[in-house]
Amino acid sequence: MIIQKSTNPRISNFDPENFSFGNMFIDHMIICEYENGKWGDVKLMPYGPLPFSPAMMGVNYGQACFEGMKAYKDKDGQVFIFRPEKNFARINKSANRLAMPEVTEEIFLGGLKALVDLDRDWIPYGEGNSLYIRPLIFATEEALKARIANKFMFAIVATPAKSYYSEPVAVKISDYYSRAANGGVGSAKAAGNYAASFYPTKLANEEGYEQIIWTDDSTHEYFEESGTMNVFVRINDTIYTPPTSEKILDGVTRDSFIQLAKRRGIDIQIEPISVKKVIEAHKNGTLKEVWGVGTAVVTTVFKAIGYQGERLDLPQLPLEESFALTLQKDLVDIQTNVAEDPFGWRVLVEKNILENA
Amino acid sequence: MIIQKSTNPRISNFDPENFSFGNMFIDHMIICEYENGKWGDVKLMPYGPLPFSPAMMGVNYGQACFEGMKAYKDKDGQVFIFRPEKNFARINKSANRLAMPEVTEEIFLGGLKALVDLDRDWIPYGEGNSLYIRPLIFATEEALKARIANKFMFAIVATPAKSYYSEPVAVKISDYYSRAANGGVGSAKAAGNYAASFYPTKLANEEGYEQIIWTDDSTHEYFEESGTMNVFVRINDTIYTPPTSEKILDGVTRDSFIQLAKRRGIDIQIEPISVKKVIEAHKNGTLKEVWGVGTAVVTTVFKAIGYQGERLDLPQLPLEESFALTLQKDLVDIQTNVAEDPFGWRVLVEKNILENA
Ligand SMILES: Cc1ncc(COP(=O)(O)O)c(C=O)c1O
Ligand SMILES: Cc1ncc(COP(=O)(O)O)c(C=O)c1O
Repeated sequence: MIIQKSTNPRISNFDPENFSFGNMFIDHMIICEYENGKWGDVKLMPYGPLPFSPAMMGVNYGQACFEGMKAYKDKDGQVFIFRPEKNFARINKSANRLAMPEVTEEIFLGGLKALVDLDRDWIPYGEGNSLYIRPLIFATEEALKARIANKFMFAIVATPAKSYYSEPVAVKISDYYSRAANGGVGSAKAAGNYAASFYPTKLANEEGYEQIIWTDDSTHEYFEESGTMNVFVRINDTIYTPPTSEKILDGVTRDSFIQLAKRRGIDIQIEPISVKKVIEAHKNGTLKEVWGVGTAVVTTVFKAIGYQGERLDLPQLPLEESFALTLQKDLVDIQTNVAEDPFGWRVLVEKNILENA
Repeated sequence: MIIQKSTNPRISNFDPENFSFGNMFIDHMIICEYENGKWGDVKLMPYGPLPFSPAMMGVNYGQACFEGMKAYKDKDGQVFIFRPEKNFARINKSANRLAMPEVTEEIFLGGLKALVDLDRDWIPYGEGNSLYIRPLIFATEEALKARIANKFMFAIVATPAKSYYSEPVAVKISDYYSRAANGGVGSAKAAGNYAASFYPTKLANEEGYEQIIWTDDSTHEYFEESGTMNVFVRINDTIYTPPTSEKILDGVTRDSFIQLAKRRGIDIQIEPISVKKVIEAHKNGTLKEVWGVGTAVVTTVFKAIGYQGERLDLPQLPLEESFALTLQKDLVDIQTNVAEDPFGWRVLVEKNILENA
């Protein structure tokens, strides 16, 4: 690893009590370049702009994929990354689908730990606070040909993140727009999937819904995901979530929720969820909860569902009665080292990794 | 317009007899930045890298779209751009679907003409040679939030292009992968659409096919496009091409071919093309020609079609008998000022635009 520490660190300007998520970056970043069929050295260097041409293929042809993961600090100042091996596996799955080179464990996990260790002071203490970490791979070759690029960059950037707590939101079941095609890239964290969702989401916002529940593009009869989260539905005391597929992202939070529900003995069924079933359950009063899960907010509870012009309100259950909130707490307690971790999900970030290497 | 001419032009190193397409850029580029809800000044400046962070949203979330167009030089050295108002309209259509700001005519067409005029010496003389021009809009804001960006860049870069002539290719009818979803972004020139096609195309290459004929993702029973081209099928003496839709790009070359076919009195039907109809026509000997059209190569004739493991060979017709080659010639003759232009498609690039402004 090539190390170039910042001579002008910005951490002294960072106020953990008062910052905005997503546009304040930690002092360093990881960079690794791919050329002539192989990855070069991993570089740990000051965060900042690099020279890129507007002809860069990552921008022109969207050959780019990313990950989103978090590091948490416990009350003793120990730092843990949550299930990083899942994100490592997934970025390579995404890279494959987009015809990009896979990264090695050394590049991804080695770079990740060194970066988080060096900039550990950027991780705010306190419940729900964390460091949001963004690994990405993108095509850097300058060429105006719609073909697989020859040059790529792997990078890791990160930003401090505040409490996972988010207000319940209203969501609209999509009956026109969709985020994934059969035989498409829905199960990859492909850059282009996100841009494609912005306009439909803006239209939903204008109708009073914060997010969209995406449905299959052929019939719009089955739930896929919600916003950038996997979706869960509780009818009576059974939880349902759609199986992952080439159209549905295999979320780390989703997988964790499933395991946590099983541990509690909650009945959880991994099967397609039809819109009809959800609407009927709402009508007959058995629809108890609907929620989304993902790294960024852990859980977003839905307070209302819009479907074909109707707005169906959902009960707001207190923690003791809510599966969504109970499982969220189970998860956050493991993530933040408040509870035991029988699953082995937490990965401790050793101190002074660079010095001891 | 802010003008900064290159102090170190590379044109003297440019050998119009010997260059490779797509990675040699003309001396200048156009840049215009969007911030605080409005576009700034158009800048004409030396082509080269700009400072961008790996956290830039255009790369992370694929909020990026582009155009592809050509300028041709006639034997007297006059330079013409082909139907630029179509690309201007289409980039704004793409921008809309991706929740990006539209550009004005002044930015797009004004920037385009000034750039092509200034670097007109980069346009090679000779049949089929041209300048390939790439306008694009992409999100430049540095933020790790999957939402519409607040900062964008419009840019125009360009590269000299060689003869449009391309060898006939074998294409595979897709029965699994697809490029567009219902309610998706297929009709936009969205960056992410291209990356999504690379892996399926690579698999097709490995089976001996140069390109894919994309079919609808729900049933794979209808033709959509071919590679990055619109597709035409000739059965007996009738030409068929699918209607444009939210899944099919409204190609400038496609539109030109339709008008040219009509002018020649050729029967042309704009209607869905079923795979079944094409296979049957091949069986009974009425399938005469299948070809793709687009700005880059104008026409690519297909010599074979792969479908579910079978390879169906197509006759190779000489120019006099081929609708594909006849219409291609009609088009190229107009583009290069060899023939009259009753449609008003050619737009002359005046000389010394900057001096006369
Ligand atoms: C489309 C989509 N679905 C689901 C998720 C949830 O995945 P994870 O739990 O791994 O964050 C994400 C990422 O956050 C996503 O982008
Ligand atoms: C997906 C796709 N289809 C069709 C075309 C053809 O469009 P045009 O004739 O405007 O170049 C293009 C662009 O070249 C394209 O990218």
